[in-house]
Amino acid sequence: MPEAVTLTAIPDIPLIEPGDDLPAIVLAAVEQSLGDVQSGDVFIIAQKVFSKAEGRYAYLDEVAPTAEAVTLAEATEKDPRQVQLVLSESKEVLRHRPGVIIVVHRLGFVMANAGIDASNIGAPDGRERVLLLPVDPDASAKKFKNAVKAATGQDVAVIMSDSVGRAWRSGTVGIALGAAGVPSVVDLRGDPDLFGRPLQSSIVGFADEVAAAGSLLQGQGAEGAPVVLARGLKMPWEPTPASALIRDVAEDLFR
Amino acid sequence: MPEAVTLTAIPDIPLIEPGDDLPAIVLAAVEQSLGDVQSGDVFIIAQKVFSKAEGRYAYLDEVAPTAEAVTLAEATEKDPRQVQLVLSESKEVLRHRPGVIIVVHRLGFVMANAGIDASNIGAPDGRERVLLLPVDPDASAKKFKNAVKAATGQDVAVIMSDSVGRAWRSGTVGIALGAAGVPSVVDLRGDPDLFGRPLQSSIVGFADEVAAAGSLLQGQGAEGAPVVLARGLKMPWEPTPASALIRDVAEDLFR
Repeated sequence: MPEAVTLTAIPDIPLIEPGDDLPAIVLAAVEQSLGDVQSGDVFIIAQKVFSKAEGRYAYLDEVAPTAEAVTLAEATEKDPRQVQLVLSESKEVLRHRPGVIIVVHRLGFVMANAGIDASNIGAPDGRERVLLLPVDPDASAKKFKNAVKAATGQDVAVIMSDSVGRAWRSGTVGIALGAAGVPSVVDLRGDPDLFGRPLQSSIVGFADEVAAAGSLLQGQGAEGAPVVLARGLKMPWEPTPASALIRDVAEDLFR
Repeated sequence: MPEAVTLTAIPDIPLIEPGDDLPAIVLAAVEQSLGDVQSGDVFIIAQKVFSKAEGRYAYLDEVAPTAEAVTLAEATEKDPRQVQLVLSESKEVLRHRPGVIIVVHRLGFVMANAGIDASNIGAPDGRERVLLLPVDPDASAKKFKNAVKAATGQDVAVIMSDSVGRAWRSGTVGIALGAAGVPSVVDLRGDPDLFGRPLQSSIVGFADEVAAAGSLLQGQGAEGAPVVLARGLKMPWEPTPASALIRDVAEDLFR
């Protein structure tokens, strides 16, 4: 049998509310569609549903923009309250232009608008709200993994995915913000090539590739398939957290 | 049935030589393992095998480095002949440091060392050689697609993939250098979100995500699985070439 991986979009994940038991909800949906989870399964779960379960909403009517936020909001033609939230979530503004602020998120991710999202989040009682990233994505992924282990006895892997823009290339791609049980970065340097010579530059952003694969089935809009299960993926390397995917500033030629 | 995509690493692809009929070789291997190809199948094929079939080798003993190449080779601690090839393949050097030269390839890709590869390529009669990118990756992908159509009557899609480094994040990920029959860039702006509001920023680098998914099974070293077949992928958008994934210089904040 050739090596194969199957990616399945788990249907019927309900809208997630703060305080929901995300692992229980996802496991129930998996059991309805695929049946039992298995050790080695990789859950690729959109950041948005983790953030919702963790109640990471910010209400714009509670935000008082600083002078810095007001100035940046004018330059970028954005709502000063949203800009204030971007600044509060960030360590540094790298670039900006109308419509976009590229920051270094407090967690180290370089991303537009600090990953703050206004799509697909609803607005109860008319109050405008946005959704921030989880406080600690690797910890959220690990908690989910442990809950699956406790409920089923199976050793699964978990990736918290998000879609981000990139330097040099158009369009967003899925990346891993958090990971548990996954070799986020795989260092193949020194492994032999087909002719027995050591590979030169082969550090692979493995968890980002898994997240990108999941993104193909998660959809972006009204499709609402935030959970994708990958089965059959070989991962013969040590697990590392997704934070290992953040390039050291000293090694980064493009900031 | 939930939406699902299966990625299969096609086994037993032989080493490819210049002039080989790549579509015939790949189709024979697919028939041995998966059976018939089907319309809608997406072939994710490593750039390396396209380049080999197209004979894109350069022999270092035929390269005469310019003064510019010699200077850059000193600064980067590289072979001046390899640096000359990098310069010949590029429009612009963006950054360099020991071991790495980041260029804008003549095709527009921002990548290390102009995508020139010394791994997995052998050295007949002891002459050192390296492998350049195909002359026109989108055209190579289209030619492959047309050959499959002619041989089988099936409408497949083709992605020529490569693994590249990125700004800000560690590790390489698969991207699409060439594409045929694939919506390389998908513009979802204006589509409704779950609550009926138009999505704000949803241009998706779809073909790059497919390439990243394929990369999970292609392996990097001695595994030698340069062809992955994706079956079940929904692509309800107009095909666009992979060149559409190259961000306009005027819109690029990170050069």
